[in-house]
Formats: sequence, C-alpha cells, structure tokens
Amino acid sequence: MKIPFLTKEFAGEFRIRLEKIRDAMRQDKLDAILIADNANLYYSSGCMFRGYVYIPLQDEKEPLFFVIRPQTVEGDNTVISIRKPEQIADILSKKGYGFAERLGLELDFLSYNETERLKKAFPGFGFGDSSRTLRNARMVKTNYEISEMRKDGLHQVSVYRNVPRLYREDMTDLELQIEIERALRREGCLGYLRTSGHLMEINMGSVICGQNADNPTPYDFAMGGSGVDASLPVGADGAIMHPGTTVMIDMNGSFNGYQTDMTRTWAIGEVPDIARKAHDCSISILRALENLARPGVEVRELYDKAVEIASSHSLADYFMGHSQKAGFIGHGVGIQLNEQPAVTPKNHLLLRENMTLALEPKFVIPDVGAVGVENTYRVTNEGLECLTVLNEELGELR
Amino acid sequence: MKIPFLTKEFAGEFRIRLEKIRDAMRQDKLDAILIADNANLYYSSGCMFRGYVYIPLQDEKEPLFFVIRPQTVEGDNTVISIRKPEQIADILSKKGYGFAERLGLELDFLSYNETERLKKAFPGFGFGDSSRTLRNARMVKTNYEISEMRKDGLHQVSVYRNVPRLYREDMTDLELQIEIERALRREGCLGYLRTSGHLMEINMGSVICGQNADNPTPYDFAMGGSGVDASLPVGADGAIMHPGTTVMIDMNGSFNGYQTDMTRTWAIGEVPDIARKAHDCSISILRALENLARPGVEVRELYDKAVEIASSHSLADYFMGHSQKAGFIGHGVGIQLNEQPAVTPKNHLLLRENMTLALEPKFVIPDVGAVGVENTYRVTNEGLECLTVLNEELGELR
Repeated sequence: MKIPFLTKEFAGEFRIRLEKIRDAMRQDKLDAILIADNANLYYSSGCMFRGYVYIPLQDEKEPLFFVIRPQTVEGDNTVISIRKPEQIADILSKKGYGFAERLGLELDFLSYNETERLKKAFPGFGFGDSSRTLRNARMVKTNYEISEMRKDGLHQVSVYRNVPRLYREDMTDLELQIEIERALRREGCLGYLRTSGHLMEINMGSVICGQNADNPTPYDFAMGGSGVDASLPVGADGAIMHPGTTVMIDMNGSFNGYQTDMTRTWAIGEVPDIARKAHDCSISILRALENLARPGVEVRELYDKAVEIASSHSLADYFMGHSQKAGFIGHGVGIQLNEQPAVTPKNHLLLRENMTLALEPKFVIPDVGAVGVENTYRVTNEGLECLTVLNEELGELR
Repeated sequence: MKIPFLTKEFAGEFRIRLEKIRDAMRQDKLDAILIADNANLYYSSGCMFRGYVYIPLQDEKEPLFFVIRPQTVEGDNTVISIRKPEQIADILSKKGYGFAERLGLELDFLSYNETERLKKAFPGFGFGDSSRTLRNARMVKTNYEISEMRKDGLHQVSVYRNVPRLYREDMTDLELQIEIERALRREGCLGYLRTSGHLMEINMGSVICGQNADNPTPYDFAMGGSGVDASLPVGADGAIMHPGTTVMIDMNGSFNGYQTDMTRTWAIGEVPDIARKAHDCSISILRALENLARPGVEVRELYDKAVEIASSHSLADYFMGHSQKAGFIGHGVGIQLNEQPAVTPKNHLLLRENMTLALEPKFVIPDVGAVGVENTYRVTNEGLECLTVLNEELGELR
C-alpha cells in the first residue's frame, strides 16, 4: 500500500487539506489530533487503512501515518507500521514530537472503550474533542473534492436518465430498484453508501412509491418507506406500482471516495393535480434557494424560505413528510452522505464558497406518493452551481 | 409501528431471549441494561427503531421500549414515545423501576460523547459495560433464529447454484459480481451487510479473482482484494477474468434480519494442480471440523485442527492468505456478519449447542487466486449441521 497523499501527484492537495485541518484545530484549541474515523482517514491520506493519522499543529512537524493494516506499507519515514495504538506515544517521543496539551480524539465516533484505551496509550497527554474540528475542516470542499463530486454527478445523471427505460408495467418498486442498482453499479457506483453515525442503515438507496412514502422510518433520512423487512425499515416495500401513484428515486451516487445525492420523481400514468402542484412547488423552491444561497447567508434562511414557499402554496401539511416529518430540507455531502451543514431552522452558520449542499424539498401526498427533486450543489459567489443537472419535471413511466 | 415481540405471535420467543439476556446480565453483575445498538435493539424487540430498550434484571418488571423514531408507536404501556434519552430516568421512577446500581451500557458501541450524555441522563445510577453481555446472550441462537438462518441458507444456495449461468467469457470480476448482486436481490436479499464495529465497510460482498486475491485489505475480512477505488479497498478490482485463475464468491446472505455466510470457488478454464490441491484441502478441513466441533470442545481446537491439516498438506504458506494472513478461520454469524465466537488460536470458549459458525478455511495461491469453501453451521450434539448445503468441488466457469 502507498499513501496517495505522500505522492507527488497529491502533494498540493495534501497541503491544502492540512492547512484547513490546522485552521480548525486552532479554532478548537487542539495542539494535535489523532484521526481514527474512516472518513477522516480518507480525507487526510487519500485512502482507507486501519490505523491512525497524527497531525501536530506546528507546521514544521509532518503528519505521521500509523498503519495497522495492511501490514506492509511503503512510504517515507512518516509512514509507520504498528500492531496497536499503544506503540504510538513512544514513537512520537523518539521523533521529537513531544506531548500534546490537548490531543483531539473523535469523541462522536470512537466508542467509549476505544477512547479509554487511547487515553491510557498516551500518558502525559491532555485530551480534547476533534469531532467538530474534522467536520468543520471537511465542510468547505477543495477544488479537487469538487471535481470528484462533479464526476459523481455526471455518472448519477447518466443512470437516472435511463430510469424510464428500466421500468416495465406491473413492476414492483423493488424490482425497479434492483434494475437501477445494476445500472448504477455498471456505471461505476461503488455500491456502498457511506454515512456518518451508526444509526443510519440503508442498501443502495431509496425507491418509494405510492402510499409507502407515508410509512415512517426510524432512520434520519428525509423520506420514509417501510422496507420489506423489519430489520431494515426504509424504502421500497415490494408492492406493485399502480397507475395514479408516483415513484421517487433517491439512490447511491458514490462513484469514487465522494458522492452526490440526487432525487427525481416519475408518475405512473395519470396522477392527481395536487401531486403535480407539489412537484412544481419543489422545483420552485430549488430555483428560489439557488438564488438565495451564497456566501454570508445563514443556512437557516434556506430552510425558512423553503417552508415559506411550501406554505404559500398551501402545501405545508405535505412538506418533508406527512405522518412524520423530517427536521431538515438538505445537508452537506461529500465523503459521507450526511455532512455539515444540516439545513435546519436552527442552523445559524454562514454559507461559504465551496460548501456543498444536497437540497431536497419533498412532499408526501397521501395515497399518491412522494414528489419532489433533489440536487447536489456547490456554493459559489454567484449562487448555487448544480452538480446533478437533469430534467426535473415530473416524467411519466409507461 | 408495532413492536413484534409484544404480539402474541412472538410472546414465546421474547421470553426465551429475555431469559438469555438476564442470564448474561447476572454473569456480568448488571441489574439493568439500556440497549441502544441497532443489532441489540433488533434482538430484543424484533424490529429496528431509534430509541432504547430498558431491561431490569428482576423477572417481575417488564422491559420498557423507549421509542424516539418512528414518532408514533402502538403497544401496551411498556412502549413509551420519547424525544430524548433525558426523559427516561423520570419515567422509570414513576413506573417504580428504581435506580440501577450497575446499569449496563454498550461501551464497545456507544460513542464516548453518547456515553457521557447517557451517564448524565441517569443521575443516581451506577454503570457497567453490557457489550459482552449482549454478545454472549446472542451467541447461542434460539430455534427461531436458526429457522431464520435456515431460510437465508436456502436462498443463498439458490443464487450460488446459478453462478455458472451468470458467467460469460471475458467478463470482469466486477461484472460477474454485479450479476450475482442482482440475482441475490431478486431472490430477496436485503442488500445491506450488517457488521459489528465501525471499521468494516463493504458493498454486497466479495468476488476475488486471480492475483487480486493476494492484495491485502485494511478491513477484518478473511480475504483481501484491492477493490476498484482507494476509498473502499476490498474485493473485485475490475480486471478481466483470465483462464488459469480462480474466482471466489463470498456474497451477502441476508434475506431477513439474519444472514448466512457462504463461499464457493470456480476455476476459469484449467488451473494449476496446486490450486485444486488447496481447494480439496479446504474441503477436508471442513469435513474434519464438522466431526470435531460439538458442545464442550474449545473453539481454538477448530483453529488448531485447520492449521494442522493445511500444514500436513504443505499448504501453510497459502493458508488464510499469502502476503497478509487473517488471524481466524471462522466466526459466529447471525444478525451481524461477525458475531461470537471468533475462531482464533486464543479462543478457549467452549462450544455450545445452537451456536452458529461460519467456517472458511481458504488459501491464496499466488498468480492463480483464492480457493476454498465456506459454510455456515449450527453446532449440534452430533457435530455440525450445515445450513448452506451445495456442491463444494471446484467447478469450472466457461
């Protein structure tokens, strides 16, 4: 194994990310961090391995890569093969890295027992929480990250374009989902949906049709669906898709270490006007948010604007769910599906250039289904740039 | 939402599991446990929800289900809708449940920050670690659990039988994997591989062919493979499958809340004798372990016997990997892919009836690929009962 960020190709990207991480460390008053979370390991090294990245705040000290698995790693003297974290403190001392007064650990991610083990493994160190530090560093994407997400968007669009060709009359929602999964995988989708936190479980995404859209899920996804088994209660329920209902496609957009998040909705035959009206309202909300969102705007303003537009169309009852409502209309996206910022009514964070936002103003119309559109955007100084450009109208499957 | 275990249908199963959990609590000197881990929630309720199950040790007090999401739940007065865990202690007190001197929390699972939050939410309580408690309770399966796993085995076998029909000449390993994924999904596979711990990431499983089998992975899977992207370094690498190599299929066997784990291997055209010899050795190892394993036998004896047989065939260099070796030859399986017991040289645990074991004596032959067989078994008083019965010979894909 080679650490990509130690190669010439990624030297520039590595320096940019290091600077972002160190800026966030200064904010959180951490003089070193020990990274263990998979997504953060990937962010700081360009690959997945089992082990740790140690980043001191001082620019003159290089980050160290402590690798447990794979057992053989190539690299310069900053890559160190270890068997267990208890070896790290000694190595740091021999390399003249000294103690940290506040070593940041990812306390939202590490289990209690792992945390206690690490604290013991670093005698003489003080500790702090780096969960927010890394989330903040990753929130504003680099140009390289955006270019990876652009690729994801093109791949995802290419598959979504073909959804009408995958549909056959009297198909179940699950049968359609399986064909989309295959198309995504053949397009290069990695097939794993990386989320933050251990409470979200899903397969390749969500296809919800008709009344199933109103079945609540325990997970923190924007939309529900009962799933086909009590052990994974989300998404398609295996029912035949009948005329007069809608089918919403919100599937895996991960074709590299990054991902885009995208939803399109189709009608099966004729659907009631209220469904078309709500779908058009979703498009109107996106147009409004595309103009509103720019650096300096508070995230909650996007939420408020979306609710305002839904209410002005008398659609508030159906907005972001009917029986059970989601508390957000969008979220950051990148290495993980659910990154910062969460677009909620309480998020006073100011938007910055190169933040990414998956905006998903959706409606659940009882007896008809879910309608709405989701795009992944980049925040620019001129408003939002869409990374998932494809016709947004309510198409018809026949 | 209804809690399945509060319905008449599951009343018996619920009592059996409660008894097993309370036995394990006594062993670990816990007078109550608060379950938060998804797999443990499923084990103790029959469904997934966001929330907690509180189980007091005393038989006369019923377990309580504290449900955050879905927001609406039906049930008797043991099902309580809450917004946050801080409400629980008050409710316990009003219901006369009193304090726990040692309330077990899943400290291998809960993050450090979640743990600290819960400790604050239960003033006056003492705390202990219930990670092992639940793992131990779940290790010996109930008859119902075995019957669910039997169904998984039948489904998985039904798909594996068709692998030769999915193969086409000059296919890549990934193309074959995608067709198997589709076949599994159409057979009812849920499409999500539930593992224990946050360090394992995989899509629908692993298809490894040729030299890729010797590429090490950072994850704790028995076999490697580089994957197609640095963000998910395991399994198929997208290379065309050439004659003279083997392809090992180890894919998702989860068709309900449970799963079986099963591997079969095929040759592409003619392969060197050493590969056939190692494959036959894998089958010999399984036959030996099927006879050896029964209640009262130490788990490590299975490991030792497998290594002994591999060595006696002069195949130790290739056993359980070549460049990088796995430290186990099998593992428990059930709700999660990697349950107790781990079949390692240091595990002195005694086998018990109705434990389940996925045994996977595998070999990596450089330049040829991985060979071997994996079955999921139930421990019976007469030896191992195979739940994944299908021809084990090295078949040929053409």
